[in-house]
Amino acid sequence: MSSKLYGYAGKLLRINLTDGSIKVEPLSREVIRGFIGGRGMNMRMLYSEVRGADPLSPMNKLYISTGPLAGTGFPLGSRLNVSGKSPQTGLIGDSNVGGHFSAEMKYAGYDSIILEGRSERPVYIYISDGEVELRDASGIWGRRISDAYSEILRELGDWRAQIALIGPAAEKLVRYSGIFFNLYRPAARTGMGALMASKKVKAIAVRGDGYVEVARPAEFERIVDEIEEETYAHPQFWPRRIMGTSRILMAANRLGILPGNHFKEPVLDYAFEVSGEYLALKYNVKSMSCFSCIVNCSRFFLVKDGEYSGLMGEGPEYEALAGMTARIGNSDLNAGLKAISLLNDLGMDVISTSEVISWAMELYESGALKKEEIGLELNWGNMDSVMKLIEMIAGREGFGDILADGVAKASERLGKGREIAMHVKGLEMIQVDPRGLKGYGLGFAVASRGADHLRSEPFIELSDDPKIGEAMFGEGEATLRLGVRGKGKLVAYYENICALVDSLEVCKNLAENMDLLNYERVAKLMGAVTGLDFTPEEVRDIGERIVNLERAFNIREGVTRADDRLPKRFLEERIARGPSAGHLMELDRMLDEYYEVRGWDRERGIPSRGKLMELGLEDVILDLEANGIKLP
Amino acid sequence: MSSKLYGYAGKLLRINLTDGSIKVEPLSREVIRGFIGGRGMNMRMLYSEVRGADPLSPMNKLYISTGPLAGTGFPLGSRLNVSGKSPQTGLIGDSNVGGHFSAEMKYAGYDSIILEGRSERPVYIYISDGEVELRDASGIWGRRISDAYSEILRELGDWRAQIALIGPAAEKLVRYSGIFFNLYRPAARTGMGALMASKKVKAIAVRGDGYVEVARPAEFERIVDEIEEETYAHPQFWPRRIMGTSRILMAANRLGILPGNHFKEPVLDYAFEVSGEYLALKYNVKSMSCFSCIVNCSRFFLVKDGEYSGLMGEGPEYEALAGMTARIGNSDLNAGLKAISLLNDLGMDVISTSEVISWAMELYESGALKKEEIGLELNWGNMDSVMKLIEMIAGREGFGDILADGVAKASERLGKGREIAMHVKGLEMIQVDPRGLKGYGLGFAVASRGADHLRSEPFIELSDDPKIGEAMFGEGEATLRLGVRGKGKLVAYYENICALVDSLEVCKNLAENMDLLNYERVAKLMGAVTGLDFTPEEVRDIGERIVNLERAFNIREGVTRADDRLPKRFLEERIARGPSAGHLMELDRMLDEYYEVRGWDRERGIPSRGKLMELGLEDVILDLEANGIKLP
Repeated sequence: MSSKLYGYAGKLLRINLTDGSIKVEPLSREVIRGFIGGRGMNMRMLYSEVRGADPLSPMNKLYISTGPLAGTGFPLGSRLNVSGKSPQTGLIGDSNVGGHFSAEMKYAGYDSIILEGRSERPVYIYISDGEVELRDASGIWGRRISDAYSEILRELGDWRAQIALIGPAAEKLVRYSGIFFNLYRPAARTGMGALMASKKVKAIAVRGDGYVEVARPAEFERIVDEIEEETYAHPQFWPRRIMGTSRILMAANRLGILPGNHFKEPVLDYAFEVSGEYLALKYNVKSMSCFSCIVNCSRFFLVKDGEYSGLMGEGPEYEALAGMTARIGNSDLNAGLKAISLLNDLGMDVISTSEVISWAMELYESGALKKEEIGLELNWGNMDSVMKLIEMIAGREGFGDILADGVAKASERLGKGREIAMHVKGLEMIQVDPRGLKGYGLGFAVASRGADHLRSEPFIELSDDPKIGEAMFGEGEATLRLGVRGKGKLVAYYENICALVDSLEVCKNLAENMDLLNYERVAKLMGAVTGLDFTPEEVRDIGERIVNLERAFNIREGVTRADDRLPKRFLEERIARGPSAGHLMELDRMLDEYYEVRGWDRERGIPSRGKLMELGLEDVILDLEANGIKLP
Repeated sequence: MSSKLYGYAGKLLRINLTDGSIKVEPLSREVIRGFIGGRGMNMRMLYSEVRGADPLSPMNKLYISTGPLAGTGFPLGSRLNVSGKSPQTGLIGDSNVGGHFSAEMKYAGYDSIILEGRSERPVYIYISDGEVELRDASGIWGRRISDAYSEILRELGDWRAQIALIGPAAEKLVRYSGIFFNLYRPAARTGMGALMASKKVKAIAVRGDGYVEVARPAEFERIVDEIEEETYAHPQFWPRRIMGTSRILMAANRLGILPGNHFKEPVLDYAFEVSGEYLALKYNVKSMSCFSCIVNCSRFFLVKDGEYSGLMGEGPEYEALAGMTARIGNSDLNAGLKAISLLNDLGMDVISTSEVISWAMELYESGALKKEEIGLELNWGNMDSVMKLIEMIAGREGFGDILADGVAKASERLGKGREIAMHVKGLEMIQVDPRGLKGYGLGFAVASRGADHLRSEPFIELSDDPKIGEAMFGEGEATLRLGVRGKGKLVAYYENICALVDSLEVCKNLAENMDLLNYERVAKLMGAVTGLDFTPEEVRDIGERIVNLERAFNIREGVTRADDRLPKRFLEERIARGPSAGHLMELDRMLDEYYEVRGWDRERGIPSRGKLMELGLEDVILDLEANGIKLP
């Protein structure tokens, strides 16, 4: 067996900020076999290396890893995962991002960059063809992302460097601050920005002239050709190329599952005026792709008139678009784009921000929160106040300081609005109403990082076709969006797929939603790229292994079934209007089924010894037991 | 009541070619009330004015009419119908076309142009702001379409003139020759080109500086705004803008209903390489719209390398694309585009041409037709021979003369291949296999102009969603593409809609497939445009009235149930491969249901007296009875 690791750079870079030491470790074949890369690799390290620590202490670590495909020219994008213990939830912290950084990392010689300890003074890291330099960041600490970005580029004089940065919000330890790649691509969920800030690292710039070799080029090329043809011929190709995820807004409006006015208005009469269609027709000026992706789903908008005339930026994607329009009752697209730009520049997660603001708006509108407490009038759609409030959160000024810790802590601290705080496990809800998309709803409840769709994204329930559910899960309701039975199977299935896709670091929108990868193809692809033979069964197990490892991490931190909940509104109030009217989430029935499919116990949701052994996670069994957790 | 007819030019132009006389008639309110315009108006005149005549004799007439919306700025395109007794079928001859001609006609002062008699010498007609001139066409008679087009423009020195032309094929009375608008937009089904040629008219050029007034502009604008928003927000908007109908090729391949190798190969491994997706990615250089349409679904291709490098043209639409690739076994897209361009320049219908050639290819491949009989080797995909054969048909040279009369007459004349001659009532089949799309199949069998989808286009069966069929027709199978029950209701319903849409002269792809018009909206629209109030029920009846009138025309010409047939292959052979494998057309059961829904008798398919009276077609009752036809 050759010692060369095809497809990978083969090295992990550990940077200890406390003493400035650098360690380069070889990437082990066992990690590849068991976890592939990216998210899986991060989770393997996180579980073993970070335990019980305060997320903002030097004991926490920040893991940035990509997979075997980044930099090879594989056509579904090159993504990476940023992971650590979440400053927001205290549980799995993890965020996935596209762009051009991951390929550059590998060209510079590394599959992973791991930040440990804490620096005394602000620094930024410059990695150039294997060389690592910690540079003084005192001059840019406190500066906004676009500004700091330009400054670093100027300083380095290296115009091809890829840069990931944090903004002022992260430096103030806003719990939902992010790390921003290529200016507009945030790894922002679960507060990875605050974690990076806690280490006093303002940015990571990376540049490399290396390359990535694949083991069997002809075979690799054949798979690439097949995927390219399927992509171009896919019915969703053009809508995705033109609108990216922004097209979801009109689709959600049609289904009556928009989060209008903090999940009170599922259908909006101004939906079209804030839609991806409208952007494509009136605002978009060019499109762009992640490294080596053929879809080019990213668009640049330009505001052509009015107060914000001249404002330009990449995106927005659906979550940002709906978050700064529908969720906060705002029908003014220009103002919504301005707010998104502000969040990108201050470095905050738009989903969590949209929740804390719309939550405060609902309290304000009901009279439970007064103007005097906030310092602003906060009626629906009041965008002047929204802009001010965003600045206040980023600077932790006044009422902004309360919102800066997220909606769960804010409702505790204020002693009101607990029941309408839309989060799971401390992470704020995304922009669809789970009552009208029940598989997604179950996914939010059980996701290892909180209320989020990207752990499972069971898009297939949008087919509303029982024949598919029957064929895949022996249960037609599984693929009816308002169905209940079979959702446990559905979510578990797609959680495994998503963990696999995140470890390959390809794009979920393409690989999963467009059904371009399946276990057989992944096995073939891994063989062609790495030269290591995988069976489809081995590949299938990898996803399940990662999901169980993440669950074990959360269990070790104290999670039980009681945390796998949804906010009360979704469980007890029926949707009032529109195509999903009358529905609510029948969560407990779905949870029972889900745990059963997972091999976790029904009372606590803890993985069984048998399941963990089956997945080769014997060390986790010993570790959990050593932590006093009884395994079923 | 005002005498002004809002929305219409208000005048019909009759040109008698025999003596060169011109007659201008007022458009009557009764015609508008009963038939709206366009196809309906043509059919009303055709039924009354043309009876029993040889289609190529001076007794036949050519009707070109548009509707109340052309030239108003209404956003779904401005179409027109060209009608007459078909030289190909001897029955209803009719073809619908978009572009810019119809608006210009109305600006020049006419809703209809009617050609009567026959000129001695070749002429072309120049209509400029009401003035009509018959000009000598001896110099351009015999010349190809692009060439004659340039010559006329040069001669007129009127660069804004819209021109409809026939090519050399029409002059040779090829039975499936067409009239070409804006160079690339053929009204080519049922041989309208041969009909125009029989009158010795090479072209019609039209130019006007008038305008069209709508009765209630604010109300009109409100409806337009609604439709524009729905169009832009429609999930099919971007695929249609990017690919037009060419996107159907991949969809048909996915469903296993392509007409590969003369309906023997429903799935093709080279489908992507000849698809609309491939054109959009590799060939398309710009897009264009019909007059005042907002979709811009028309594309221009440019061949960038190889033998045909530099070849450019508008389109192709699906029928042409599949006809010059899949149907004749050709995987070379460049050669397919060349063949389509040749047909456009010679002035022939691509659907009928694709049938006569693929039919001859099947006979050649089976050994039933020899190289000596054809003068060419005619194996699948032999594009050198295809190009030569197209020229031979257009010039009626050798074997081409046999094919020039269409597949029905060719099989009679040759005394072979009758059973595999893919036509209904003498009109060649379009590019989908009815065995895998059964509502379409029934539509082909009963369509008044022969084997064609545009009389009914029951696209909704592509949803494959029984809930829709249940809701619309009380029969879930109606909207399953492989279902049988309910197809009579489905086809009758959409035939009525299509007749209405063709009389409004808006685009079927948008109005019908994208569900942008319904009876209520059409009633409102007619009110806003014309100032005449219509109820939704009146509007609904118009479609049914037109369908019955067309049926009565065909009945008068001798059509019975025996003519409502499909070729034997679809009735007796099952699809061999792919997602539709095992299916055939259960035509008789569907026909029984269809006649019943229509109120036509089961034995002959003749409209009942009651049905004709209900629709206000009393003159038709008297006329049919005078022709010795017993009405049920």
